[in-house]
Amino acid sequence: MSLFKKVAIIGTGLIGGSIGLSLKKHNLAEEVVGVSRHKKSIILAKKSGAIDDGSTTLEIIREADLVIFATPVNVIIELAPKIAKIIDKNCIVTDVGSTKEEIVRLLEKIFPGFVGGHPLAGSEKRSISNASASIFQGSVCLLTPTKKTKNDSLRKVRMFWEGIGAKVVLLSASKHDKILSLVSHLPHIAAFSLINSVPKEYLGFAAGGLKDTTRIAASDAEIWTQIFLSNRKNVLKGIDVLERNLGNIKSAIKQNKKQLSIILNAAKKKRESVV
Amino acid sequence: MSLFKKVAIIGTGLIGGSIGLSLKKHNLAEEVVGVSRHKKSIILAKKSGAIDDGSTTLEIIREADLVIFATPVNVIIELAPKIAKIIDKNCIVTDVGSTKEEIVRLLEKIFPGFVGGHPLAGSEKRSISNASASIFQGSVCLLTPTKKTKNDSLRKVRMFWEGIGAKVVLLSASKHDKILSLVSHLPHIAAFSLINSVPKEYLGFAAGGLKDTTRIAASDAEIWTQIFLSNRKNVLKGIDVLERNLGNIKSAIKQNKKQLSIILNAAKKKRESVV
Repeated sequence: MSLFKKVAIIGTGLIGGSIGLSLKKHNLAEEVVGVSRHKKSIILAKKSGAIDDGSTTLEIIREADLVIFATPVNVIIELAPKIAKIIDKNCIVTDVGSTKEEIVRLLEKIFPGFVGGHPLAGSEKRSISNASASIFQGSVCLLTPTKKTKNDSLRKVRMFWEGIGAKVVLLSASKHDKILSLVSHLPHIAAFSLINSVPKEYLGFAAGGLKDTTRIAASDAEIWTQIFLSNRKNVLKGIDVLERNLGNIKSAIKQNKKQLSIILNAAKKKRESVV
Repeated sequence: MSLFKKVAIIGTGLIGGSIGLSLKKHNLAEEVVGVSRHKKSIILAKKSGAIDDGSTTLEIIREADLVIFATPVNVIIELAPKIAKIIDKNCIVTDVGSTKEEIVRLLEKIFPGFVGGHPLAGSEKRSISNASASIFQGSVCLLTPTKKTKNDSLRKVRMFWEGIGAKVVLLSASKHDKILSLVSHLPHIAAFSLINSVPKEYLGFAAGGLKDTTRIAASDAEIWTQIFLSNRKNVLKGIDVLERNLGNIKSAIKQNKKQLSIILNAAKKKRESVV
């Protein structure tokens, strides 16, 4: 018997499609259905075997015992009340949103079986054509239960992520948003700002350094607009920290060679500790 | 007949070693000798076939018809007068330094056959054990001739770089330093600052985004201290530009969602134009 009878994936892009492929590969669901606003995405998801059936309307998710939101943050919030009207009260609901405080606060009011989630996987490419069951293998998935979270919902969502190869870490939604503002949102802001700092006519001189530091600036602008706004408070604090660190390098270049070398050595040592 | 009779490489690290391997591969020199402060580097360079012979003292470069400086910027400046005492006046001299104004100004006074150069290749790894003849294949090498540069020296240095597979682009030293401050030095400053902005205890949550944007923060701190100081004026201007772009994102997050989306979309479009 599978862990779930019918799983509904809302949003069949890179993450949603990869979840579908993973569920299939590990036999965790008897049936997987997908919903997307884009008919083409449904067709491709079906063709790749990520879903058994799909639709551009929500009706298809009826009778699901697990619903997974895999859409941008704002779309999760927009669709939640509509989905609540269709599914059973006992249905377990989770999401893969990049921010958690806002989503958890709203969705746990709407869904008794809600568990907030965020797999640390993905890339600047977002379409179903880049989907793969392997992206969660060995990755970390953060879950953000609250006092309201039902033990059984948490247990099953955890089994789902561990079943597709992820390592589950539990933390609060507010801690999640604080950490992610620095390890994920701030690097994106740095990358967007950095590429905007280089005149177009100089781009032909770009070597590996610029390419690597700005790779994620090719990420979807709408998704990231929503992430920054949803985690506004922490993101603004993060930018302040980055500005301070830039300022430290600036004043060291101006007046203190030894201090400059100390700052760069500390950075090097820290970076080398990241595996 | 080879292009050069005896090539002396000062500094047998990643770039110097790769030049040696490239010279050998393309039969551009009858003899290649190397100088390094580190005996181990000489032994490894010889073992890998990057040099025929090597030494920790300069005497070995006597009778070279091409000398290539492949050391950090400050070491080039430090060694130049000593090397001038050993080599012939007609010897062609070039370098691979990451900044050019300071080096060109000083070295063309010392060496009649000097041509400033900077191959846009390399990585955060700097040792001879990462050297490879392939790193210049299809890469760009910038040469910065001045009014004083002899045609014959420029012609032969150009033939050398093209002979090992690089595409040569000529530009002034001041233009070079301006461009590189934005396409190379600023990304390094951003990477150093970014990793310094993430608390140690959060590094375990780092996914691909942080890893890519900060990869070059693992670069050698002493080398980059020297590069930033050697190109101080342009680098400080570059930091100002980055701070302005960070400030733009910050105020858009605070008050203007549409503006935020416009900024991120412009960045995405620019990044996608980088090949």
